[in-house]
Amino acid sequence: MPHIPLDENLPGITGLLNYRLDTALPIRQLTQILLRGESTLTEGERELIATVVSNGNQCRFCTNAHTAAANVLLGETETAEKVKNDPDNAPVSQKMKYLLEIARQTQINGKNVTPQLIEQARAAGATDLEIHDTVLIAALFSLYNRYVDGLASVTPTDPDFYNRLAGILKTSGYLPSANRYAALKADE
Amino acid sequence: MPHIPLDENLPGITGLLNYRLDTALPIRQLTQILLRGESTLTEGERELIATVVSNGNQCRFCTNAHTAAANVLLGETETAEKVKNDPDNAPVSQKMKYLLEIARQTQINGKNVTPQLIEQARAAGATDLEIHDTVLIAALFSLYNRYVDGLASVTPTDPDFYNRLAGILKTSGYLPSANRYAALKADE
Repeated sequence: MPHIPLDENLPGITGLLNYRLDTALPIRQLTQILLRGESTLTEGERELIATVVSNGNQCRFCTNAHTAAANVLLGETETAEKVKNDPDNAPVSQKMKYLLEIARQTQINGKNVTPQLIEQARAAGATDLEIHDTVLIAALFSLYNRYVDGLASVTPTDPDFYNRLAGILKTSGYLPSANRYAALKADE
Repeated sequence: MPHIPLDENLPGITGLLNYRLDTALPIRQLTQILLRGESTLTEGERELIATVVSNGNQCRFCTNAHTAAANVLLGETETAEKVKNDPDNAPVSQKMKYLLEIARQTQINGKNVTPQLIEQARAAGATDLEIHDTVLIAALFSLYNRYVDGLASVTPTDPDFYNRLAGILKTSGYLPSANRYAALKADE
């Protein structure tokens, strides 16, 4: 049960973003810029960063949601599974392997991001902006994970819930929109 | 040395917020709403939440900056010092002691915020919104701390730097403004 009264039809982050709309707006805008704005990283790659950070923080809602978002954007499920559980063998570029490692270390503590790790990423082709955005996406999901779990929001167990949410995130992104979550409910 | 090229006159978070202005704006707006917007928590109390989270993450820049901001808002230095190092004896209300403990646990992991801790805070007078805002401020500074340290931004050692920054945060808040950091440089 959530620590504060949230709309029971809106589990996880969705009810929290509905609880206080004025704080939700800049959180949504920041996420839209970082995960859907112009970038040399694909939307799928950026969802993988969100996935490994949420997985590191053991935030089940966020891990399930961004795994599903990465899956729908990449068109397969192997990559998200491997970056969480077998990163060395994940079918991503060497640059992405280093960026995902930067994200994992940022999740633990920013001080864990060493000059060596940065140099490896850069040698594999990562730009300054990609390094910046990787750290900031990892920092943003360190916020989300704590917001979702710190208020004990509900974590659905039905995989279809996350597939429906991923569809919304693919089609509509992260900005507020009318009837945004209408499709979250299963057909009755 | 920072991991990416930042304005060397803008240490800590200041150079990062100047590096990518489009992502900086919603971060600043969220901070302004949470730390300076209407609230039943004082600005000083909210800076104490930022302080204990930054201290828990061992982010020296953020700890120094928000300790200085709390000091200037509270008009004394004892409270910020005690909430970091001797929280049981900090001269804050029982409600604030519990809210600060919620913030400390959120910093470690959102799952650490137990129903018992929430009930104690509520019994001491904390409202749902105060509990929500405490968790979200703690989550936001978990973002800031990782952003600042994950990119190895510079941490000034001169205490006067943080006093000048605290003066800006007290007078101007967190939104962008022209020549915002002109007063950061020491008089020559």
